[in-house]
Amino acid sequence: MNIGFVGMGKMGTGMARNLIRAGHQLTVYNRTHKKAEALAADGAQVADSPAEAARNAEAVFTMLSDDAAVAEVTFGDEGIATKLKEGAAHISSSTISTSFARHMAEEHGKRKQVLVSAPVFGRPEAAEAKRLLVVPAGEPKAVERLRPLFDAIGRETFVIGTEPWQANAAKLCGNFMIASVLESFGEAFAVIRKSGVDHHIFHAVMKELFGSPVYANYGGIIADEKFEPAGFALSLGFKDVRLAIEAGQEAAAPMPFASVLRDHLVSAIANGQEDMDWSSIALVSARNAGLKADKG
Amino acid sequence: MNIGFVGMGKMGTGMARNLIRAGHQLTVYNRTHKKAEALAADGAQVADSPAEAARNAEAVFTMLSDDAAVAEVTFGDEGIATKLKEGAAHISSSTISTSFARHMAEEHGKRKQVLVSAPVFGRPEAAEAKRLLVVPAGEPKAVERLRPLFDAIGRETFVIGTEPWQANAAKLCGNFMIASVLESFGEAFAVIRKSGVDHHIFHAVMKELFGSPVYANYGGIIADEKFEPAGFALSLGFKDVRLAIEAGQEAAAPMPFASVLRDHLVSAIANGQEDMDWSSIALVSARNAGLKADKG
Amino acid sequence: MNIGFVGMGKMGTGMARNLIRAGHQLTVYNRTHKKAEALAADGAQVADSPAEAARNAEAVFTMLSDDAAVAEVTFGDEGIATKLKEGAAHISSSTISTSFARHMAEEHGKRKQVLVSAPVFGRPEAAEAKRLLVVPAGEPKAVERLRPLFDAIGRETFVIGTEPWQANAAKLCGNFMIASVLESFGEAFAVIRKSGVDHHIFHAVMKELFGSPVYANYGGIIADEKFEPAGFALSLGFKDVRLAIEAGQEAAAPMPFASVLRDHLVSAIANGQEDMDWSSIALVSARNAGLKADKG
Amino acid sequence: MNIGFVGMGKMGTGMARNLIRAGHQLTVYNRTHKKAEALAADGAQVADSPAEAARNAEAVFTMLSDDAAVAEVTFGDEGIATKLKEGAAHISSSTISTSFARHMAEEHGKRKQVLVSAPVFGRPEAAEAKRLLVVPAGEPKAVERLRPLFDAIGRETFVIGTEPWQANAAKLCGNFMIASVLESFGEAFAVIRKSGVDHHIFHAVMKELFGSPVYANYGGIIADEKFEPAGFALSLGFKDVRLAIEAGQEAAAPMPFASVLRDHLVSAIANGQEDMDWSSIALVSARNAGLKADKG
Repeated sequence: MNIGFVGMGKMGTGMARNLIRAGHQLTVYNRTHKKAEALAADGAQVADSPAEAARNAEAVFTMLSDDAAVAEVTFGDEGIATKLKEGAAHISSSTISTSFARHMAEEHGKRKQVLVSAPVFGRPEAAEAKRLLVVPAGEPKAVERLRPLFDAIGRETFVIGTEPWQANAAKLCGNFMIASVLESFGEAFAVIRKSGVDHHIFHAVMKELFGSPVYANYGGIIADEKFEPAGFALSLGFKDVRLAIEAGQEAAAPMPFASVLRDHLVSAIANGQEDMDWSSIALVSARNAGLKADKG
Repeated sequence: MNIGFVGMGKMGTGMARNLIRAGHQLTVYNRTHKKAEALAADGAQVADSPAEAARNAEAVFTMLSDDAAVAEVTFGDEGIATKLKEGAAHISSSTISTSFARHMAEEHGKRKQVLVSAPVFGRPEAAEAKRLLVVPAGEPKAVERLRPLFDAIGRETFVIGTEPWQANAAKLCGNFMIASVLESFGEAFAVIRKSGVDHHIFHAVMKELFGSPVYANYGGIIADEKFEPAGFALSLGFKDVRLAIEAGQEAAAPMPFASVLRDHLVSAIANGQEDMDWSSIALVSARNAGLKADKG
Repeated sequence: MNIGFVGMGKMGTGMARNLIRAGHQLTVYNRTHKKAEALAADGAQVADSPAEAARNAEAVFTMLSDDAAVAEVTFGDEGIATKLKEGAAHISSSTISTSFARHMAEEHGKRKQVLVSAPVFGRPEAAEAKRLLVVPAGEPKAVERLRPLFDAIGRETFVIGTEPWQANAAKLCGNFMIASVLESFGEAFAVIRKSGVDHHIFHAVMKELFGSPVYANYGGIIADEKFEPAGFALSLGFKDVRLAIEAGQEAAAPMPFASVLRDHLVSAIANGQEDMDWSSIALVSARNAGLKADKG
Repeated sequence: MNIGFVGMGKMGTGMARNLIRAGHQLTVYNRTHKKAEALAADGAQVADSPAEAARNAEAVFTMLSDDAAVAEVTFGDEGIATKLKEGAAHISSSTISTSFARHMAEEHGKRKQVLVSAPVFGRPEAAEAKRLLVVPAGEPKAVERLRPLFDAIGRETFVIGTEPWQANAAKLCGNFMIASVLESFGEAFAVIRKSGVDHHIFHAVMKELFGSPVYANYGGIIADEKFEPAGFALSLGFKDVRLAIEAGQEAAAPMPFASVLRDHLVSAIANGQEDMDWSSIALVSARNAGLKADKG
């Protein structure tokens, strides 16, 4: 297929590369041109605008940081929506709000374009290694037609709904579940340390108990307090938790754990941690337990 | 070694059997005699009182449901402490409070007996299969001397402290971390279901994302609402969360996630769920989202 | 002064009437014309649009339900901003978001118009009786010039800041404090009732203890469960709590009590209470304690 | 009546004095003798033990700091229970746990003695001025017979139940409601201050809005950060909140606000505030908002 791809960050680059490897013809765009050009070596064409990336595409991916960025490349003057053909699809893989996803679906619908939300779980290494989990939602025929693309970028595809925003709800809830692990480590480590126990040993036990890379990796980062450089910035984690709470509000489902996360992330930001890894939420529990009052 | 073992529930039976398999001579006791006799076939002697189980032992295990039960078999008229030899050890594997562990250490100390706390992680199947994680704490020489026993009942031994209560703090924090997973599933499922998404698919994604048996098993139980029969009763989970909060209070470390857990477990009990599996904490989030107001 | 007034709900009507009583010349507007005409008997002129109400005014009040309503009457085609004179003031008394207040200040500024936020505390009866508390913020000279208007509608004026949004932050925090009283009654009543105590007696004690009409009135409503008709709809209370949390986020100040309020209000909405009085948040605590599972 | 009184702290002294003023014959006891002797000038006899204070009394008051202190003077070797006549009453005015109140009722019952719980609301000044609110519960005839004593020490008497512990539940819930005010001030002030607003003005608004001495006094203490000397020590407030949560647990009623209070009080203790006034809970919100990270 002819595929457009907008957003050549670490995630987008890995995803685009796997689409090329699967035999698709890619036209890529990135605001800072240089990152897009890196893909040229792999055989991608480089576009000068999102519109141009979309013009001849059967589907155009977007992989960007937030609602505002997606809105700009989609509905701006040179945006995807201006050139995407009738019946062609915008595949939105960014972690965006459910309300913006609904708005996009409506706007594309007016233009007889199709929106499919297809957020992914996994870090840049997983994107590069085609190890992502892909969670698409949208009109069933469109999703089926695009399935080869999802399969090309991930290790498993889970069709989760018939309306695009449902996939965004699922992605936000998934990130909420990861964030909950970070907070539970933060609280447990504070008790453990103040009980005079080496929290690295406690982490080793949890690693075995859960048998999960999430617990192994994040528990280790928190135990070692290696919050810089950030794998995933706390400010982005804060955005995701807020959007999860909003998704809960729209569905009329309370989320008290998410509320604790929000409050602790706000405290982290108030104490200068927005650029640290989001696992540094654990510093809030540490400070509240009287540990390291002078740090973070 | 000559080993006593008090508390022949599902966990204790598996642990005792593995001690026998490792070549130790066991004398076992259980309040309801019958359960103890099951071990006779494996070569254990059956005692008529905790005291008798302790009399000739170098170490006597206790594996019971709570502080009160351990207090009775340890310091009651026919209790372990009345007969345990000087220098011999009481290995407490029950999930008890840190304050009671300190009290026990002191009382045994007066009698020149040794207390080692050695709580375990794992379900009855894991106990039977010698797959437990064993987390002992106590006087280092005593712990070293007893290590063959820990290695005999589990797949890995993590010495976590030099004072017995520290191991109990670790066990309580570990259970808190599992409980946090249950709650995060409860909240996420409520949002997902009220968003019109099949939460079984969301569970499938989480299973892959975390790659952990804890997420696979408990997520499945919650998705299917198979809360009976209980693998671990909600009333026991409530006890553990309360004790975790107490351990946090003693250490002066706040635990807002544990507080949410406590409040939701109280609500579960108020709605008649004490005998269900503790993962039925998820019903509280469901009800609070207006789902199944008539159930649980 | 020549004063415009847009929004002739219960609050606005009382406020407008007191401005007339103080000798000001009023031109009033309301979307449903009839409510505006009620003021004609008091000597007000009735305008056909917000723009017309603003045309000759030195100051124009708005008293509406939310951001969207204020945005429409202010920046719509026939909005206040189209006709308000240079140097004249828009006095915004609605409970709106701090971010929208900042947006309005900027937009008015471009037109050389002045924005003063002047939210009020008090119910319709207090508005009618000139018993409101008025909390203005804005450019100091403008606030000073408009002070006679504030004094005309309330029993006391508290100038709280030099930027309009600061008054909105204060109003939202004040409503948060009232909402906290509702929740604390809800939790205490649940414990009291389940302890077999008549919660009306407990309410009588609290009435004496706090000596506050807020505790007397709301405590009574909650004790009697007289949630309909609503004095202040739960859906509006939910809006205010969300905006308080947002104000906290902007200031980087966590609000765990507000988070509990938000979660309980979401649960109330999920259970069909949006049109009840916001004090019906207490039903959430009642349900969570197993009381009246079939109601609300 | 012949009245015994044990516990001559600030509260007890005021209460005892008003009993004397009402014409009763008092025999008082205090661990540090000197405080008891202060009452001799008012006409009280001074006893050498709780037992002696109880010997000839129709009723003996206790007004002490916690369960342990009440247990000692009641059931110790020289305790009240050893000498109190059959049919005579122990009036427990201390803020104690509901479970200990039930235990006491049972123990006194075995001796055919009567327990009435009669906790009070009010500070030492109110005790001195006969301005307390008295909240008795117990066997109705006993309560009626003792009513003149309650009326002698307070401005109003609210009979709240037929079992003593119910009054303790009410007292704990009342203190929970006051603590909730402290926390709501803490959160609101943090938002207000970080919004660049003088929180003293906000306090002035709240003072008018609530019209309550509790809001006037505590809001002022928090605004001025005059946490020393403590009017009511944070460590005691922590005890009361914990006991309120326990009362909620026994009744199976969750208390999420109380959970937030507990977590913040633990954090306050972790940061060295146990001897400050309990209103210093507000420092936790301040720190979490990045204010005064180096204080408290």
